[in-house]
Amino acid sequence: MKILAIDPGVERVGIAVLEKIGGVREALVYSDCFKTSAKLPHHERLVLIGDEISRVIKKYKPSCLAIEKLYFENNQKTVMSVAEARGVVVYECAQNELGIFEYTPMQIKLAVAGHGRASKNDVHNMVEKLIDLGFKKMIDDEVDAVAIGLTAVAIEKLR
Amino acid sequence: MKILAIDPGVERVGIAVLEKIGGVREALVYSDCFKTSAKLPHHERLVLIGDEISRVIKKYKPSCLAIEKLYFENNQKTVMSVAEARGVVVYECAQNELGIFEYTPMQIKLAVAGHGRASKNDVHNMVEKLIDLGFKKMIDDEVDAVAIGLTAVAIEKLR
Repeated sequence: MKILAIDPGVERVGIAVLEKIGGVREALVYSDCFKTSAKLPHHERLVLIGDEISRVIKKYKPSCLAIEKLYFENNQKTVMSVAEARGVVVYECAQNELGIFEYTPMQIKLAVAGHGRASKNDVHNMVEKLIDLGFKKMIDDEVDAVAIGLTAVAIEKLR
Repeated sequence: MKILAIDPGVERVGIAVLEKIGGVREALVYSDCFKTSAKLPHHERLVLIGDEISRVIKKYKPSCLAIEKLYFENNQKTVMSVAEARGVVVYECAQNELGIFEYTPMQIKLAVAGHGRASKNDVHNMVEKLIDLGFKKMIDDEVDAVAIGLTAVAIEKLR
């Protein structure tokens, strides 16, 4: 079973593909921080994001999407555009018949770092212990995506 | 020139297609209030909405999309899901190479009713005067979509 894990955004989309190896451990098959230029109109950025998700689905054939639930933040304008981008990601995945799993930031912190009040740093440190990230220097959004993927592994295993 | 006008939503999406006739007046070619059931998971509703937009584009071949800009409202949860649905609509249209025009509620009121503080009723009454809606009893969301289309006609003519 392959999981496509997404940390949604417009400027930066964290993308990770995780795969179960031998029914025990997870391996990171692919990860990237996909960026779109702020110089482009918003709708063009949505198309770039949707096209990239579609490309990754075609290449890695994941069976499900794990994605963070969005909540309101202080910067209202950004949250609305991020919600639009998130809609495009979910739409592309649902159209390609991936199962859709959504997790709150609290669920991700709990699943990866063991407690709901874990810092971003705690989560990133635990991600590095839980899965081999290779030698690649990762951008935060990529690590966040891996954390979301690991959350899906932990939670869906229990169900 | 045909305009696809959308009043974005998840429960109800107002859809209208307007066409210029003889370079003077606009005609309403199509309108509908597209509904999705609250019993469905959110991602399935996004797929239904995207598929419907795609169907309308294929059938009527509009050259541009006119859509309302979203702002925060009291009901936060709804606004986030509506933003996701709006993202899907813009994405489908941009993928199909429609020009994208976005208007604030204020711009729509100004363009249709002549002043930015017009009530929903004022706008609807003016829509009925500006364009022949036929004998069909329209749902509010449909009339809102027509108003957004008329705004595009008014504003883009001046540019």
